[in-house]
Amino acid sequence: MEKTAIEGIGKFSHHYPKLAAIVTASFEEKDNAMTAAWHSSISINPPIYGVSISPKRFTYQLISQIKEFGINFIPSEKAHFAASLGSSSGQKIDKFQKLNISKEKPLKTSVPLLKDAYASYECKLLDSKIYGDHVWAVGEIVRGFKDWLSA
Amino acid sequence: MEKTAIEGIGKFSHHYPKLAAIVTASFEEKDNAMTAAWHSSISINPPIYGVSISPKRFTYQLISQIKEFGINFIPSEKAHFAASLGSSSGQKIDKFQKLNISKEKPLKTSVPLLKDAYASYECKLLDSKIYGDHVWAVGEIVRGFKDWLSA
Repeated sequence: MEKTAIEGIGKFSHHYPKLAAIVTASFEEKDNAMTAAWHSSISINPPIYGVSISPKRFTYQLISQIKEFGINFIPSEKAHFAASLGSSSGQKIDKFQKLNISKEKPLKTSVPLLKDAYASYECKLLDSKIYGDHVWAVGEIVRGFKDWLSA
Repeated sequence: MEKTAIEGIGKFSHHYPKLAAIVTASFEEKDNAMTAAWHSSISINPPIYGVSISPKRFTYQLISQIKEFGINFIPSEKAHFAASLGSSSGQKIDKFQKLNISKEKPLKTSVPLLKDAYASYECKLLDSKIYGDHVWAVGEIVRGFKDWLSA
């Protein structure tokens, strides 16, 4: 198989497709949600999840204050949430209200969860580290949710 | 949507499907490859990639010596490589030889690349950190390959 070397890698995308995750956070009555494509589980026991976020993002500002975040996975019929949440900032608006996204109360953290998610993880921040232009935020999953019927 | 709380999360799997990556490494004439499901790009500029590996894995031992690794993505017709590479250890055998997997020479590192991969990244290890039962290995992509025709 012939390959072409890419000297300037730029927005490299060979590792797609990936499932989009909706990252949620809350601080001082401000709830926010953003779409993330770069995320992964990184430990089974204890269960730990990592997500890469630009430090410019409002969600990251909330996470760095409250030290918690939510990871939500949405069914395909709600895929438009991923596009809408990824193309606006929660700095000035309440995305949940504007985009008519229902919230669900968390049990072990203060992060909002997406009611329409088929699975959500409530995470306590363990570590966050800058690599290049993003922060790798790592959290222990303190509670997992799953709708068994739709899985 | 009704959800069931999972108190013991165990081998949580709500964040699948994911693309499998074949991680390659080499040290003192020993080449090895393993399958990883937990990996993500984590920075655009510079391009940085992360992969979660059990510290028990032979590949991790090689990476920690040579401070380099390769990330390879294979086309669906070679998907059996992912299953075979994931179910054997390179500690005693040469997986490339045993599984009849052709190698390609790297240009900027010493890691073997999979000839059949439609894309490969050569990475220089920047950092590695233990989170729970896995090590999160982070590397700067110093060279990317792509077969434009099959993409």
